[in-house]
Amino acid sequence: MTAFDAVDVIRTKRDGGRLSDEQIDWVVDAYTRGAVAEEQMSALLMAILLRGMTAGEVARWTRAMIESGERTDLSGVDRPTVDKHSTGGVGDKITLPLAPLVAACGAVVPQLSGRGLGHSGGTLDKLESIPGWRARLSHAEYLAQLRDVGAVVCAAGDTLAPADRKLYALRDVTGTVESIPLIASSIMSKKIAEGASALVLDVKVGSGAFMKNAADARALAETMVSLGGAHGVRTVALLTAMDTPLGLTAGNAVEVAEAVEVLAGGGPPDVVALTLALAREMLAAAGLDADPAAALADGRAMDVWRRMIRAQGGDPDAPLPVAREIHPVRAESSGIVSALDAYAVGVAAWRLGAGRARKEDPVTASAGVVLRARPGDRVTAGQPLLELHTDQPERIERALAALDGAVTIGAAPANLPLIIDRIEA
Amino acid sequence: MTAFDAVDVIRTKRDGGRLSDEQIDWVVDAYTRGAVAEEQMSALLMAILLRGMTAGEVARWTRAMIESGERTDLSGVDRPTVDKHSTGGVGDKITLPLAPLVAACGAVVPQLSGRGLGHSGGTLDKLESIPGWRARLSHAEYLAQLRDVGAVVCAAGDTLAPADRKLYALRDVTGTVESIPLIASSIMSKKIAEGASALVLDVKVGSGAFMKNAADARALAETMVSLGGAHGVRTVALLTAMDTPLGLTAGNAVEVAEAVEVLAGGGPPDVVALTLALAREMLAAAGLDADPAAALADGRAMDVWRRMIRAQGGDPDAPLPVAREIHPVRAESSGIVSALDAYAVGVAAWRLGAGRARKEDPVTASAGVVLRARPGDRVTAGQPLLELHTDQPERIERALAALDGAVTIGAAPANLPLIIDRIEA
Repeated sequence: MTAFDAVDVIRTKRDGGRLSDEQIDWVVDAYTRGAVAEEQMSALLMAILLRGMTAGEVARWTRAMIESGERTDLSGVDRPTVDKHSTGGVGDKITLPLAPLVAACGAVVPQLSGRGLGHSGGTLDKLESIPGWRARLSHAEYLAQLRDVGAVVCAAGDTLAPADRKLYALRDVTGTVESIPLIASSIMSKKIAEGASALVLDVKVGSGAFMKNAADARALAETMVSLGGAHGVRTVALLTAMDTPLGLTAGNAVEVAEAVEVLAGGGPPDVVALTLALAREMLAAAGLDADPAAALADGRAMDVWRRMIRAQGGDPDAPLPVAREIHPVRAESSGIVSALDAYAVGVAAWRLGAGRARKEDPVTASAGVVLRARPGDRVTAGQPLLELHTDQPERIERALAALDGAVTIGAAPANLPLIIDRIEA
Repeated sequence: MTAFDAVDVIRTKRDGGRLSDEQIDWVVDAYTRGAVAEEQMSALLMAILLRGMTAGEVARWTRAMIESGERTDLSGVDRPTVDKHSTGGVGDKITLPLAPLVAACGAVVPQLSGRGLGHSGGTLDKLESIPGWRARLSHAEYLAQLRDVGAVVCAAGDTLAPADRKLYALRDVTGTVESIPLIASSIMSKKIAEGASALVLDVKVGSGAFMKNAADARALAETMVSLGGAHGVRTVALLTAMDTPLGLTAGNAVEVAEAVEVLAGGGPPDVVALTLALAREMLAAAGLDADPAAALADGRAMDVWRRMIRAQGGDPDAPLPVAREIHPVRAESSGIVSALDAYAVGVAAWRLGAGRARKEDPVTASAGVVLRARPGDRVTAGQPLLELHTDQPERIERALAALDGAVTIGAAPANLPLIIDRIEA
């Protein structure tokens, strides 16, 4: 590979130029090897954030990130492989019912997942509230579970896009997270390297999402759909609303309990609706003609869930951790709940112990927020609106502060759709 | 001091906001102490380069850099103190005759100087070609020499704007050098901390200068003049031409020899003219009514030079190092030299051994380029235009490559002024 000077590469982007394919290949590889210093990549990331990247640059950057590690070969799996990725929201436990549901319909779901950071939860943190369940699998265990169960939700190994692991940690401390080219390449490098043939993206929009407005979310979705296609992965994105938490829970064990309700045929209507919508997209992308509503209703999805949890050491029948303290937040007046801010609920759950500020912090399984009312519900003054769950009562005050102004009681809310748009190549 | 979050400070500037005084004080101090990481400062520097800074932000940033160390107290010196700073060019040996000349006229010149990097030479490197001369003085030696000789050119101590030393090294490797707020605060924090009451800036413009066009040079000069005034230092700037090397030499010993010629009453007319112009500005800023041309003509400046060199261990009578190999570059055609590119000559001198690529590299005292013709001179084909001086003949080929196209022979050049403009508060 041709060697470049890191300062020349930085200057090219700083001055609004286009990085060549060779410059991108070199800088991503050299950074991963440690030959380009953290402070040099940091300056380059800020220049990318402020100057942007062309579609061609993002595609090459993503390719270089994939090639920093190994792309998993799933050609030995004899059923269609399909994955889902959500850009993250509050109460977003959809992966938990979705992966076993889609597997129950005949696809294989190889989902490498992450942990929560800040107000946004992480699937692995949620599953770890199940006694015995473990996120780390060997490569052999992973392939065996895909074959035998059809669904795996686990942590990514060290060989999956190692450039992204370094870049992600660097972006977090240098104020260079909020860049569509960098977000898209980070997500897609991991998802493409994961090896699935098809991918459905749930790009969230609203206060509790990373993207606060639909235009940014749409741009991100279009970039990712195009990156998937360029690497031979059939990719579709749904833009979905994240102004209010999904379902009635935000936390870890409380979200697992809600996911199990959905698998049992119940659960909040919005969680069921989004699970089914994403399942239909995944099955279509995988080329399968199956009815996920039937697989949910007749218990096949629940069967796969139980086998999936057991395969990773978990006990699906063990009671989930319960918080020592439950603090109700009551309605201050009577009327209709017109808004319940997702971001505020996410921060409250985080402050109660469900989330973390730094990636090495632990999380508390039992902590979180449970909603007793949702926008559109009529409430009377003094009635509980929310419950704060925590093992550390001293955390309640700061959670309440986060919720200040989060609930509006007044006029009926506009009936906004959960699924805002669908984007494909 | 209030503590801030580094990522919040980075985001403020990234998004085009104004950093508060408290944010600036905190981030410069925390970076100097190591509490803000190199990669965080690197992202902030790129955001500053691309988003700019208001005059108020640059003033506060400069103040914070000065306060990262100690401002030298020169109030014990009983004559007016005045310094000069050049933004750097090719063949710019002006400090060598200028400091003793101004001291000979009754001012005290406390000049803390730097080393060369890339195509641009450094005053300390040049003086070190004088046998025995040393750049490092103790604080006591420094003050004694100011008192006894009236002029010191030496290396800055570790307590002078330590934030700048860290920032300068970081900017060099992260493509964040070319920012007027960062250049101005870097230069002025050191010059203000140095403690002189007045300052004359030589802001160079042209191919061999850092600023390639007059608009940028003017903006830099105006920013620096204003920063000086804000800190009680009477500051004036001259904008001077740097399209052709100053004088007939670019290197180390060859430049010292030319400076001594000027002190002896001879030397190239452009070097003499600029030395006298800067001396007049310095004397005026110091409030002294003296005639530098007389002090040059009657040998008083040479006397101070000899005492200044001796005070720092040098022998002003020792022969200067001479290169083992001198390679002539001859005119390819006959005519008038219309251009002789300063940048190309600077790179050639560097490649011959006079300069360095990294700050820890050594330089060769005898290496450099000597001009045998200047723009406006009539030459005949085959006549020597330049001489390449080096101890390592294997370097000649790369120096010749740098000089490819550097000399134009054709029409007479436009008679551009050496001093383009004068900027004061």
